[in-house]
Amino acid sequence: MTTPVPRGGFAPPPSPLEDLPLGEVYRLIEPGPVVLLTTCRGTHANVMTLSWHMMVDFSPPLLACIVAGALSSRVLDETRECVIAIPPVSIAGAVVGIGNTSGQRIDKFADFGLTPARAAMVAAPLVAECFVNLECRVVDDTLAEKYGLRILEVVKAWRDPALRDAKTIHHHGYGDFVVDGRKLHLPSKMP
Amino acid sequence: MTTPVPRGGFAPPPSPLEDLPLGEVYRLIEPGPVVLLTTCRGTHANVMTLSWHMMVDFSPPLLACIVAGALSSRVLDETRECVIAIPPVSIAGAVVGIGNTSGQRIDKFADFGLTPARAAMVAAPLVAECFVNLECRVVDDTLAEKYGLRILEVVKAWRDPALRDAKTIHHHGYGDFVVDGRKLHLPSKMP
Repeated sequence: MTTPVPRGGFAPPPSPLEDLPLGEVYRLIEPGPVVLLTTCRGTHANVMTLSWHMMVDFSPPLLACIVAGALSSRVLDETRECVIAIPPVSIAGAVVGIGNTSGQRIDKFADFGLTPARAAMVAAPLVAECFVNLECRVVDDTLAEKYGLRILEVVKAWRDPALRDAKTIHHHGYGDFVVDGRKLHLPSKMP
Repeated sequence: MTTPVPRGGFAPPPSPLEDLPLGEVYRLIEPGPVVLLTTCRGTHANVMTLSWHMMVDFSPPLLACIVAGALSSRVLDETRECVIAIPPVSIAGAVVGIGNTSGQRIDKFADFGLTPARAAMVAAPLVAECFVNLECRVVDDTLAEKYGLRILEVVKAWRDPALRDAKTIHHHGYGDFVVDGRKLHLPSKMP
């Protein structure tokens, strides 16, 4: 019941996206937002919600994530490709709905009003409503069987210039979220 | 130049701490705050700043982190113990200072005004100024050499009842932080 992929793949994103330099990816993942992870096998796309992720290296950008869901794990193992999309707080309701359901029974893109869009380097779709989309390949699954842990390399990154000041959400368990608050700058030598 | 450990170890925490049930640990790590990681070898304690971490399992609580610093990596490999401490925004200046310096040259606890305190199950110290302290053991270092990635099991967790509503900080790179903002509750079946 996942989204059927149109012949020739997904339509391009409805609004034009900008390149996000790969060296900037960690600045969006390191703060720990709730993200979406999309996969695509054959003609069917799926999307899951994910908070268990971290950066692993700056350049090329590597990140780690724990994917435990049966469908996404299986497709990730087969295709070795996914998209990590960062949702703005405005679609938090859809993000929670996606986290509470399985793509084995419903078409999550359609049911939660999200638009899968054509990626440049992977078959998995971008999520048009997200302000950042990261096209990823699995580069290390040594710990996949034991913990569900995969190391992903971001091979292409996009941001939506129309959503430049989007705020993210952070999950504290049981549907309790905290939204990004005030900014603080402290001179630092850390990248 | 790390903090000398008094004979018999560190003094107990200056204000009484409460047990944090191990099953609640993910609710504090999953949102992605900047944390401190302490280590102790022989008579010397050290502390580093860390944002590259994630949950791996709920119970027993497992988390993963990337430890790249030379001193902390070496001590972690030797002792296989550390403490992950979650700082409130009120000590953000110390957190940044710790991230910008090496314990090979200075005593970071003393230089940044932090108090190492006795842990229950590991030699590494708690950080008395932090609102949560997690005593951890390294349970898997399969990917340590390749990525600096260690899997930690939290064996004992503490919270400071005097800092119950502490706000955390999230790093966006180059000393730009975002502080926890408004809370949002969306009914969810997710833990």
